Amino acid sequence: MKTINIGLLGCGTVGTGVAKILIENKGLISSRVGASLILKRVADIDIKRDRGVCFDNGVMTTDAYSVVDDPEIDIVIEMIGGDGIAKDLILKAIKNGKQAVTANKALLAVHGNTLFRAAAKKGVDLAFEASVGGCMPIIKSLRESLVGNTISSMTGILNGTCNYILSKITFDGSAFESALSEAQSKGFAEADPTLDVEGIDTAHKLAILTSLAYGMEINFHDIYIEGISNITPIDIEFAERFGYRIKLLAISKNKGDRVEARVHPAMISFDNPLSNVSGTMNAITISGDAVGDMMLYGHGAGMMPTASAVVGDTVDLVRNILSGSKGRIPLLSYQFDNIKKIPVMPVEDIFTNYYFRFSALDHPGVLSKIAGILGNNSISIKSVHQKGRKTKGSVPIVILTHLAREADVKKALSEISSLDIISDSPVLIRVEDENGED
Amino acid sequence: MKTINIGLLGCGTVGTGVAKILIENKGLISSRVGASLILKRVADIDIKRDRGVCFDNGVMTTDAYSVVDDPEIDIVIEMIGGDGIAKDLILKAIKNGKQAVTANKALLAVHGNTLFRAAAKKGVDLAFEASVGGCMPIIKSLRESLVGNTISSMTGILNGTCNYILSKITFDGSAFESALSEAQSKGFAEADPTLDVEGIDTAHKLAILTSLAYGMEINFHDIYIEGISNITPIDIEFAERFGYRIKLLAISKNKGDRVEARVHPAMISFDNPLSNVSGTMNAITISGDAVGDMMLYGHGAGMMPTASAVVGDTVDLVRNILSGSKGRIPLLSYQFDNIKKIPVMPVEDIFTNYYFRFSALDHPGVLSKIAGILGNNSISIKSVHQKGRKTKGSVPIVILTHLAREADVKKALSEISSLDIISDSPVLIRVEDENGED
Repeated sequence: MKTINIGLLGCGTVGTGVAKILIENKGLISSRVGASLILKRVADIDIKRDRGVCFDNGVMTTDAYSVVDDPEIDIVIEMIGGDGIAKDLILKAIKNGKQAVTANKALLAVHGNTLFRAAAKKGVDLAFEASVGGCMPIIKSLRESLVGNTISSMTGILNGTCNYILSKITFDGSAFESALSEAQSKGFAEADPTLDVEGIDTAHKLAILTSLAYGMEINFHDIYIEGISNITPIDIEFAERFGYRIKLLAISKNKGDRVEARVHPAMISFDNPLSNVSGTMNAITISGDAVGDMMLYGHGAGMMPTASAVVGDTVDLVRNILSGSKGRIPLLSYQFDNIKKIPVMPVEDIFTNYYFRFSALDHPGVLSKIAGILGNNSISIKSVHQKGRKTKGSVPIVILTHLAREADVKKALSEISSLDIISDSPVLIRVEDENGED
Repeated sequence: MKTINIGLLGCGTVGTGVAKILIENKGLISSRVGASLILKRVADIDIKRDRGVCFDNGVMTTDAYSVVDDPEIDIVIEMIGGDGIAKDLILKAIKNGKQAVTANKALLAVHGNTLFRAAAKKGVDLAFEASVGGCMPIIKSLRESLVGNTISSMTGILNGTCNYILSKITFDGSAFESALSEAQSKGFAEADPTLDVEGIDTAHKLAILTSLAYGMEINFHDIYIEGISNITPIDIEFAERFGYRIKLLAISKNKGDRVEARVHPAMISFDNPLSNVSGTMNAITISGDAVGDMMLYGHGAGMMPTASAVVGDTVDLVRNILSGSKGRIPLLSYQFDNIKKIPVMPVEDIFTNYYFRFSALDHPGVLSKIAGILGNNSISIKSVHQKGRKTKGSVPIVILTHLAREADVKKALSEISSLDIISDSPVLIRVEDENGED
C-alpha cells in the first residue's frame, strides 16, 4: 500500500485532535483511502507536554522549518494559527511543492489572496475547510456540491463563543458580563475575548465564504463588523415577545454588481431554523438559484470536530496525490482568471428592518416627535411598543420598522438622540426577517 | 477551453431541471470549472412537450441507447428512474467507458452492488449524490468530509411526502387520509403513494447510506420498514403533550459486528433539531467519533434542488476527466477489498423506548393487568397516562417505557391484546430519545 507522509505544525488543541485521528483511526482511513497516512513529523514549541497521544521517537521537533523542508513530507498541516510565523511556514511549504492544509481563518481572511496565488502558481493545493464552521462542510459545499448554483446569499452563526453567550442571556436572563465569565470558565471563550465577542472572528470567516461564493477578492476591512457586547436582557426580552431571537449573524448577499458583507447582532424569527441553533453550535444557511435554501449545522469549534474537517481536507489532498490530480479544484472556487473585483456595499447603503429602543421621558408628545423624525427620514413604522414601567424617570419606547435604508436610520437616530426628551443613546438592532420585508 | 459532452437520459421533472441549470448557468459553471459543459444529447419518450428549455435541433431523441452509444458523450446522466431500463442503460454506459450520474435510489438500493462493481471494474465513476436527500451533500459528507470518522449512527427525515403529511396532522389536526389528499393535490405525493407513505423510499435511501457509512454490502430486504398510514391525531396529541414530535425516521446504528437499519415513525424530543424539520423539508443527523453530531438540512426533492445535486455530481466527474483522476474516490466510500458483510440486526433485537396506547374498558384493575404483563416481559414503565374521556366505552391508556427489547415488547403486546378488557389493537410507536435512554 502506498504511503503518504504528513507533517503537522502546531500541536495545541486542534493539532492534537488531528494527531489522535490520524493515529487512532489509521486503519479505518486506510481502508477507505487505499493508502497509509503516516504522521511523520510534529512541530511544537512544547515537545514535553503529555497530550494523550503517543508519538514515536523522533517525530516531535521544536523546529517547524525542518518539517516544511523535509523532502519526505508530502502534506503539511498548519495548526499554529495567527498571522505571524504561520504565513511564512505555509509559503515555504508551498515553495517546497508540498500540499498544505490550514484552519487559519485570520490568516486567510487577511492574506488569503497572497497564499492562494502562491499555491496556484506552484500547482499545489491549499485546503482550508476547517477555517469556517468547524466540522461543517461549507467550503466543500460552495466549491463542489453547489457548483451549478448562482449563490444569492449566506447567513451564518459562525462563532460558538458568541452564540453561547447570547443563549445564556436568552435562556437564563444573564447579563453579558456574567455570561462571558461563564463562557470563559467553561473554556468556550478566551481570556481576551475580543476577537470573538467583537465579531472579528466571524468576519474572518465571512470574508472567506464571500470570496468563494461569488468569485471575488475581498478586502477584509470592507466588512461591517459589530459585536455582541451591547446586547442586554431587555432587548432579548422584547425580541422574544415579537417572536424573534437575537443571534450574531454573518450575512453575505449577492447584489450583482455589489455584495453585502456584514457581521452584527440581528433578530431572526422563530420560524428561521437558525433561531434554534443554541449554545456553542454553529450553522449556516446558503441560498442558491437551484438549491433553494440549504442549511449545515454542527460543532463550529472544539478539538475533535475541527480536527475531523482537517483530516477530511488532508484525505482530499492524499487522493489528489494518489490520482495525480493536484489542483483539481480551483482554490477559490472560480478559475483565477474569472475572479472579479466586486465592491462591498458600505453599510449605509443596505436596506433591512430595524428594532429601535429609545429611553424617553414620560411626557405627552414624545412619540409624535420620534415618529415625525423617522417619517421625515423615509422610515416607515411597523409597530410601536411602550413598556409601562419607568426606569429612572424614563420609559422604553420600542419601534419596529419596515424596510429602511441604513443611512436614513443613522441620520434619524442622530436627530432623535439630540432631543431633550431622550435620556440615553438609542439602541438599534437589525431585524433580518425575510418574510417581513415589506 | 476544453469541452465535455453530456448525455441526459430522461427529461421529466428533475431531468428538465438538470437541463435548465446546464444551459442557463453554463457561463457560471465554466468560470468555476474551466471547461465548457455541453448538453449534447437528451433522450425522452416525449420529445414534443414544451419544457421551458430550448434545445438545439438534433439534441432530443427517443432512443436512449443512441446516447449511451454515442462515442462523443463523456458523461451520461440517468434520470429515468425505476429499476427497469435504467439499469440496463447505466450498465451499457459503463461498458462504453462513460462516467455516469444517477439519482435512482430504488435502483441503487436493490442493484447497487452490481452497478458499483461494474463501474469499478471498468475504472469509471458512478455518482449518486441526488439519490439521497435531494440537495443535501450527504454522500459527499460520508465519502469525503467525514473520512476520518468512525460513523456511529445516522438519523434522517428523508421523505418529503411523509414529512408533509405528518406536519399537516400535527399542526392542522388533519386525519391521515385528508393530509394525503392535500399532499397529492399540491404535487407532493404521487397518485399511488405507496412507495412514500409505506416507508419504502426512505428505506431505499437508508440502504445506500448504511452501506457507505460502515463499508458494507446491504441486502435491502433486511431493513425493517413501517410506514405512516396508521398515525392518528390522537397519538400526535399525546406526543406533543410529552414534548415529542412524530417523524418518519430512517435510523442506522453501528453496533460493531452488527448494524441497525430501520424505518418507522418515531417520537423525538422537541430539543432534537430534527423535530423542527417541517413540511417537505429533509434533514439528517450524522454522528461520528470525531465530528460529534452534524446535521444537513434542505429540500429533499423537487425539480431544482435535486438537479442542483445532479449538476454537482456531474462537475465532480468533469473534474476527474480534466485532471485524469477517474476513480479518485471509491464508489462505496471504502476500497472494494475492505467492504465487509455485516449483518443487519433483526428488529426483534433492538432496544429503544416505547409509547403504547391501549384502548381498555374502564374497569378497575385494568392497569394492574397491563403493568403485570409488561413487568413479566422485562419492560419497565416510565409513566402512565389515562385520558378521562371514554370512546365507545373504552378509555385510552398511554404508557411510556424505559429502554426495552423489541422482542419482549411484541410478546407483551400480544398477551395484552388477548385480554378481554382490551377493545382494539394496541398502538406502538418507538421513542427515539437519546437523553431518555435510562
